[in-house]
Amino acid sequence: MVALDQEFRMSDALLLIHGGAGVPADAGLLAPQREALRDILLAGQRWLAAGAPAVEVVVQTVALLEDCPWFNAGHGAVLNAEGDCELDAAVMDGSRLQAGAVAGLRRTRNPVRAAEALLKGGSRPLMLIGAAADAYAQAQGCEMVTPGYFETPLRRAQWQAWRAAAQSAPRLDHDGRMGTVGAVARDSSGNLAAATSTGGMTGKAVGRIGDSPLIGAGTYADDRVAVSCTGTGEAFIRLAAAHAVAARLRWGGQGLQAAAASVVQEELPRVGGEGGLIALGRSGDGVWAFNTPGMYRGRVGVQAEPRVAVFAD
Amino acid sequence: MVALDQEFRMSDALLLIHGGAGVPADAGLLAPQREALRDILLAGQRWLAAGAPAVEVVVQTVALLEDCPWFNAGHGAVLNAEGDCELDAAVMDGSRLQAGAVAGLRRTRNPVRAAEALLKGGSRPLMLIGAAADAYAQAQGCEMVTPGYFETPLRRAQWQAWRAAAQSAPRLDHDGRMGTVGAVARDSSGNLAAATSTGGMTGKAVGRIGDSPLIGAGTYADDRVAVSCTGTGEAFIRLAAAHAVAARLRWGGQGLQAAAASVVQEELPRVGGEGGLIALGRSGDGVWAFNTPGMYRGRVGVQAEPRVAVFAD
Repeated sequence: MVALDQEFRMSDALLLIHGGAGVPADAGLLAPQREALRDILLAGQRWLAAGAPAVEVVVQTVALLEDCPWFNAGHGAVLNAEGDCELDAAVMDGSRLQAGAVAGLRRTRNPVRAAEALLKGGSRPLMLIGAAADAYAQAQGCEMVTPGYFETPLRRAQWQAWRAAAQSAPRLDHDGRMGTVGAVARDSSGNLAAATSTGGMTGKAVGRIGDSPLIGAGTYADDRVAVSCTGTGEAFIRLAAAHAVAARLRWGGQGLQAAAASVVQEELPRVGGEGGLIALGRSGDGVWAFNTPGMYRGRVGVQAEPRVAVFAD
Repeated sequence: MVALDQEFRMSDALLLIHGGAGVPADAGLLAPQREALRDILLAGQRWLAAGAPAVEVVVQTVALLEDCPWFNAGHGAVLNAEGDCELDAAVMDGSRLQAGAVAGLRRTRNPVRAAEALLKGGSRPLMLIGAAADAYAQAQGCEMVTPGYFETPLRRAQWQAWRAAAQSAPRLDHDGRMGTVGAVARDSSGNLAAATSTGGMTGKAVGRIGDSPLIGAGTYADDRVAVSCTGTGEAFIRLAAAHAVAARLRWGGQGLQAAAASVVQEELPRVGGEGGLIALGRSGDGVWAFNTPGMYRGRVGVQAEPRVAVFAD
């Protein structure tokens, strides 16, 4: 686990992002991925500086991560057991405890925007699934695409390798250049928000939902902390991992770093979970924690320059 | 809120059930509903006495509640905006933190059994949605039915009234004879489990998921407490209500009654939530809490006779 430095902690408006936890195997892809994360952080910095609310910053940031082919969400998502993309996303506004979530999308270009529309609708409903969720997104003005939009040659190759190996179990993107994406932000008013988006795992069962779109599991924000997770989703669900970090702060009086470390380094391995999370507290303290060799991640503040990391760097 | 009595707290193997929170409007239906709850508690008592694991007791109990036409789950579920039944359920085994969840079922007679199959499969995957979830249930040997099986004349009449009133917002079953069902149990080994099943709300959007099938929101169990919720699902999701009860015990050192009261009487109203929950602790202490005029509920122990209640009785 890597705690953030003092400069970052003192800044007023902040953004942390992740592009998934895993084990990068192809060093040749690291450079473009780092570059993409840095560009997205710079965009986030502009929104922070313009005074955008935290919830807007995380939605726009995650939408950029969805559009980027290097990460497992939106364009570039992994393929399920049948070779299709099914997309999940969630967003939560900590200041009002409002949230939106979608699962099993196949036509909405930016799943996080469908989740945002539900949040803006007052979280009633809060969560929609399947074709009805796509239809809702379309009615709300979200951009629709044909399913082929999401697929990239790299993901098709990974899926073919998965199928050729006749692996019965879905796998994290462990070969493993990319993953779920997420963002947490604190705006200049001190409000917190979190958003997460994913294509799941290569070869996942059709209709399978992981932790990303589940409020409290992969995504949570209140007035103390915002959390976005990545990894073996089922383990995060069983722990209510994102809410567990918030609960340790709220009822346990724990610090953010201790709370994140306990969930990721102690609890997660007990249920066979691999992955990590990013979290941002209301006083501007941030943390990223992971129990995998690497996690694509980055941070930026209004004054603080973007910093991108993959391993324990 | 009503705390359980000493006799119940001292018994070894225990079961609490609920049939939804709301405002019973038709006193004529109360008698058969109470009778149904009592019969189901007696069945639960036999399983408890036979030494069945807690997770099996809650699944079998919830399956009976699903089969009963008086409650909003399985046969007798409410109809969505298009006049169809879409069913959600979850189960969690607190001793192993294993869980299973399904949403958007249309063909599986007992949604809780589909959730159980996922749990028994090692929670990998843990949650399935839509037609794929029905197909999984069928492959696991769950009984399939035609969609018409779930519908009752009463639910059709409620749906027609909803549509005639041109209500744009879904409504809790406030007229309000029935509701979501759930069970929490503690077996003779001290293990805890929780299960919840629902048809949602009359006129709900197609594809809408409430808290019932979401681990941490409407259903949660660990080695300290098992919780099943009922009410306006979105509010429970925003609070991660079931996990919040567990978190208050685990990290806040709160008692079960104080934790349940805080969530239901203080936090829930702040996010516009109505409903209640049942919870059972590892030492055999139990509680039910609700902020509606009534909640169908009951409890039984190996030695303790069944007790059924609707209002603050």
